[in-house]
Amino acid sequence: MPAFQPKDENFAEKVSDSFGRQSIMALIGARLVRVDPGEVEIALPFREDLCQQHGFFHAGVTSTIADSAGGYAGFSLFPAGSSVLTVEFKVNLLAPADGELLRAVGRVLKPGRTLTVTEAEVSAVKNGEQRVCAHMVQTLMCLQGRADMPTAG
Amino acid sequence: MPAFQPKDENFAEKVSDSFGRQSIMALIGARLVRVDPGEVEIALPFREDLCQQHGFFHAGVTSTIADSAGGYAGFSLFPAGSSVLTVEFKVNLLAPADGELLRAVGRVLKPGRTLTVTEAEVSAVKNGEQRVCAHMVQTLMCLQGRADMPTAG
Amino acid sequence: MPAFQPKDENFAEKVSDSFGRQSIMALIGARLVRVDPGEVEIALPFREDLCQQHGFFHAGVTSTIADSAGGYAGFSLFPAGSSVLTVEFKVNLLAPADGELLRAVGRVLKPGRTLTVTEAEVSAVKNGEQRVCAHMVQTLMCLQGRADMPTAG
Amino acid sequence: MPAFQPKDENFAEKVSDSFGRQSIMALIGARLVRVDPGEVEIALPFREDLCQQHGFFHAGVTSTIADSAGGYAGFSLFPAGSSVLTVEFKVNLLAPADGELLRAVGRVLKPGRTLTVTEAEVSAVKNGEQRVCAHMVQTLMCLQGRADMPTAG
Repeated sequence: MPAFQPKDENFAEKVSDSFGRQSIMALIGARLVRVDPGEVEIALPFREDLCQQHGFFHAGVTSTIADSAGGYAGFSLFPAGSSVLTVEFKVNLLAPADGELLRAVGRVLKPGRTLTVTEAEVSAVKNGEQRVCAHMVQTLMCLQGRADMPTAG
Repeated sequence: MPAFQPKDENFAEKVSDSFGRQSIMALIGARLVRVDPGEVEIALPFREDLCQQHGFFHAGVTSTIADSAGGYAGFSLFPAGSSVLTVEFKVNLLAPADGELLRAVGRVLKPGRTLTVTEAEVSAVKNGEQRVCAHMVQTLMCLQGRADMPTAG
Repeated sequence: MPAFQPKDENFAEKVSDSFGRQSIMALIGARLVRVDPGEVEIALPFREDLCQQHGFFHAGVTSTIADSAGGYAGFSLFPAGSSVLTVEFKVNLLAPADGELLRAVGRVLKPGRTLTVTEAEVSAVKNGEQRVCAHMVQTLMCLQGRADMPTAG
Repeated sequence: MPAFQPKDENFAEKVSDSFGRQSIMALIGARLVRVDPGEVEIALPFREDLCQQHGFFHAGVTSTIADSAGGYAGFSLFPAGSSVLTVEFKVNLLAPADGELLRAVGRVLKPGRTLTVTEAEVSAVKNGEQRVCAHMVQTLMCLQGRADMPTAG
């Protein structure tokens, strides 16, 4: 894992502020746990209203925190005054998302001026044991000169 | 688009029951709109707590209804007494998910005994106009002899 | 399927010239069959040296013509003087690529100034009957102001 | 990276034999370099007939060796008497495949009785320096009780 040099020294605050504007994160109860240059972690405690039909976390919920973990891992390396957009992502569901907590760790695989590729690993913590349940690969786009703010004031 | 013959005559009720057990659908306010053999539609009205940082539907929310629309499209063709599992899916985000409603239409591309491949198109309806905002391709697994019920009673 | 307006009236010649410079196409014996705005078809007759271990077309060969069919479908809509780059693609292998001929049809799903999304369907023709064997979704990048020529003259 | 225990003690010979039956590998000049339990490496020297229009390795060629590297990484862990099938794969092209040699290293991410997930990293070696040019994630299926042999004798 190479070390990345952030172009924006306020990268951690920038990511944290943007995460705070993602209203879905508050709805599901996800927390931003860690922001390093090119690596971001999100945690999501289990709740009974986040499930698919078998009582495990829904794959869409797993994907939601994986998308944000990867997206903010990329965004942490973007220059100031730019914005991040997910172009595409793919999720392989490796095991049931069964546990009292999900942890999504997003990492930059390849930074770029326009496109950045990331991966995220999502683990389910059950009775204190952690098991990988999903693997994501994602392409991000950097929108230069557009601050990461709501379009409507 | 070929017409599919469901193996389970109660396919629509089976899908509807299973959808009703996906607690995340109630949390976000998604509704099952239509169940045909091999094709399922889900609708999701806009709410301010479903958004990413720019005020549009979060890509994870878009993916959540795409995953379920594709998953139930496949499940509608499964034999009675079996269960559905998402193996993997990929989402291309084609335009901002900006509108008063999202519509996800899932369709079976290739049914199979063990693996089924589906696609889903998600559209955003804004001021009555509909625009495709996401395209998903998904692999499902049919678990024979395991009814689609919670593991805990 | 919407009709697309090519920005470059020489789109068909441009695609054909570029295809002619893809030396791998000659090696495997692939032919450019059809170039319409936003839709391109490639054909590949069976040969015993294109196979995987079971004697069918190798998935990499299937992907090679799918990648080029999708890539040139996108390129057909690009402005003159630009170049095409594949950002990513995903292939679902729906059935064995078993037959005397493969046909790959690439189509633009969503054109864009920078990024274009395409899909391709690959069919195997066996004893005159055609069967879909692979489905691809692809993201392309348009490199403005860089002609589609070898870097070395 | 966890260490994997192969179920078939002849795993290396089995992989090598199967690779030898993939006729496309001989056509393009790919060599099987290394077979460890759950990890396989393939090398492909540059040739002028393996290229796309800019004179770099075609993305389909890159994908061909990535698919086989990942596929044989999985196959190395399969039980004796079984066969391997690629269900799907996704390739992100991170940099031009520009160099005198491509190296594809496939690794198992998650082994399974029916489905196995792998990833492969493809690097281009240019003037002795190695640079990652592609990242693949793949789903494999294990066909029990079907030896990995040509269907026609």
